[in-house]
Amino acid sequence: MSNAVGQVIRCKAAVAWEAGKPLVIEEVEVAPPQKMEVRVKILFNSLCHTDVYFWEAKGQNPLFPRILGHEAGGIVESVGEGVTELVPGDHVLPVFTGECKECAHCKSEESNVCDLLRINPDRGVMINDGKTRFSKDGKPIYHFLGTSTFSEYTVVHVGCLAKINPLAPLDKVCVLSCGISTGFGATVNVAKPAKGSTVAVFGLGAVGLAAAEGARVSGASRIIGVDLNPNKFEQAKQFGVNEFVNPKDYNKPVQEVIAEMTDGGVDRSIECTGHIDAMISAFECVHDGWGVAVLVGAPSKDAVFKTHPVNFLNERTLKGTTFGNYKTRSDIPGVVEKYMNKVNLQL
Amino acid sequence: MSNAVGQVIRCKAAVAWEAGKPLVIEEVEVAPPQKMEVRVKILFNSLCHTDVYFWEAKGQNPLFPRILGHEAGGIVESVGEGVTELVPGDHVLPVFTGECKECAHCKSEESNVCDLLRINPDRGVMINDGKTRFSKDGKPIYHFLGTSTFSEYTVVHVGCLAKINPLAPLDKVCVLSCGISTGFGATVNVAKPAKGSTVAVFGLGAVGLAAAEGARVSGASRIIGVDLNPNKFEQAKQFGVNEFVNPKDYNKPVQEVIAEMTDGGVDRSIECTGHIDAMISAFECVHDGWGVAVLVGAPSKDAVFKTHPVNFLNERTLKGTTFGNYKTRSDIPGVVEKYMNKVNLQL
Repeated sequence: MSNAVGQVIRCKAAVAWEAGKPLVIEEVEVAPPQKMEVRVKILFNSLCHTDVYFWEAKGQNPLFPRILGHEAGGIVESVGEGVTELVPGDHVLPVFTGECKECAHCKSEESNVCDLLRINPDRGVMINDGKTRFSKDGKPIYHFLGTSTFSEYTVVHVGCLAKINPLAPLDKVCVLSCGISTGFGATVNVAKPAKGSTVAVFGLGAVGLAAAEGARVSGASRIIGVDLNPNKFEQAKQFGVNEFVNPKDYNKPVQEVIAEMTDGGVDRSIECTGHIDAMISAFECVHDGWGVAVLVGAPSKDAVFKTHPVNFLNERTLKGTTFGNYKTRSDIPGVVEKYMNKVNLQL
Repeated sequence: MSNAVGQVIRCKAAVAWEAGKPLVIEEVEVAPPQKMEVRVKILFNSLCHTDVYFWEAKGQNPLFPRILGHEAGGIVESVGEGVTELVPGDHVLPVFTGECKECAHCKSEESNVCDLLRINPDRGVMINDGKTRFSKDGKPIYHFLGTSTFSEYTVVHVGCLAKINPLAPLDKVCVLSCGISTGFGATVNVAKPAKGSTVAVFGLGAVGLAAAEGARVSGASRIIGVDLNPNKFEQAKQFGVNEFVNPKDYNKPVQEVIAEMTDGGVDRSIECTGHIDAMISAFECVHDGWGVAVLVGAPSKDAVFKTHPVNFLNERTLKGTTFGNYKTRSDIPGVVEKYMNKVNLQL
């Protein structure tokens, strides 16, 4: 591996200098990993819409200059003090929400929103010392989601790294570090549709397609894809979506359209857009008595979820999830194995 | 029993002639039961706040004259065509939400909001013919919640009657026909607190006390009662409440007070007031990662539940229930048996 252990590495990174302005490929300095940190050579990245949200910084707190990127695969270059479970050469997926293994959330079977390492888009520095590991000409560059993978090298807290099978193709499994696990897990870990049930998926991007795939492998018989862009419908068929609704085609709320299609509502819905109106529709389109809606998409910071409380009293359930309820270190290696064994996951 | 089978019965009833005006004891006519209906001699009533809501008709649709009352115990006087499972002399609890045993809800293990007989405060007539069975001097008097128990005799759909153990004291078990089952069931059937967990109960009326009792028998270790009236706290101790919060004692939202008391929030909360602010507080006071809030209280028709969607994405769950998820005919006889056997229920 590198000969730079303990030294600053100079490498290329895509730096966001200002909100909404094109990223600039710069040569940056990447400091060595400190206590409980790992420096990772990033080999593959994919682009998640959350990167775009925070690059645009509309309805989000701006924090620049910043190195974005959080859906990636790489190899450990060096480790900081106290890191015992990773060594240089290990293959890892950096994840935007971590697992300290010590807090009440990490010890709970139900939660994955670690007290120490949960997603925090407003933090641009490392937890250990409140400083950045990136700089250019001595000027700090902020981190993003603890991952900042749009760099040839990055520094990540050990709790935000899943150690995976080194035989797994990093160019493929990098998408398991965010979108695919988020959508697939939202369905199989949280919504848990029964065999033969009806599921609506709002938003047919990567997260929504993975949510649909979760419904398909769960044996759902009707999987209704909802999107404003009908060009997405053809591809979605490969992930099990067998009915389509474009809200633009109707002059009434899409929840009413879906309720009419399904004799009162779907059994489960998964909201994968982050738009507040879609969240409300996703909740209100589930069947009373037993319907469960799961919110997945990241909302803008001023969004307000509104509904009449009778929609709850009629026995609908609304849940939300971060990263499909997967724990980064404990669960993601197993998700990669499922892909390697071609079980339950198309990529 | 009565000799009036097939005849109109003249008896006393408390009639609400206008919103908010004192009920008047009148002699009314009660027509014989029609198809799938049962005429019941009411022996005991208790008063539920929902009667008061619809008597006041603030934030509800006014429908007068009306005979209120829905928490009662009685004995079958006569049955209409098609009624086979009840005979004159059977002891029954009329329930505001029924069980037809035919619809998807009745066939679901999860739901009790029967398509045909679910609570419908806007309906003042019988389903069979759209007419009332009550009149005074030939003028119809509307029904309430399909029960109208503030009358010596009433007519109820067979699906809204639980046939109970004739040895059960009707003066006691009448409260199982609404408030106690609603609160107790909300906890044991829906919130399902684990042994040792922390539960908040909003509103310490009959429903809230029953919800607390459900938490007590489930083994919750901290049961926090929330009420604006501190006079309720002493009695609540008998139902397991061991900590009290009066929102008036603080100058910050009660959800923040509770989060501070509980290191981040309670494991379960049950909202038993019907006030929208309490609903929002009850949701926002549950712990992220695993907290579940259950709405029980009936809201005003214009109420809007509002919260930031991140409160869901941080893995909180919000559910609601009608009548504690109990099915009227299938489950309530067993709840009465629990009381008879002094299992899990204080009355």
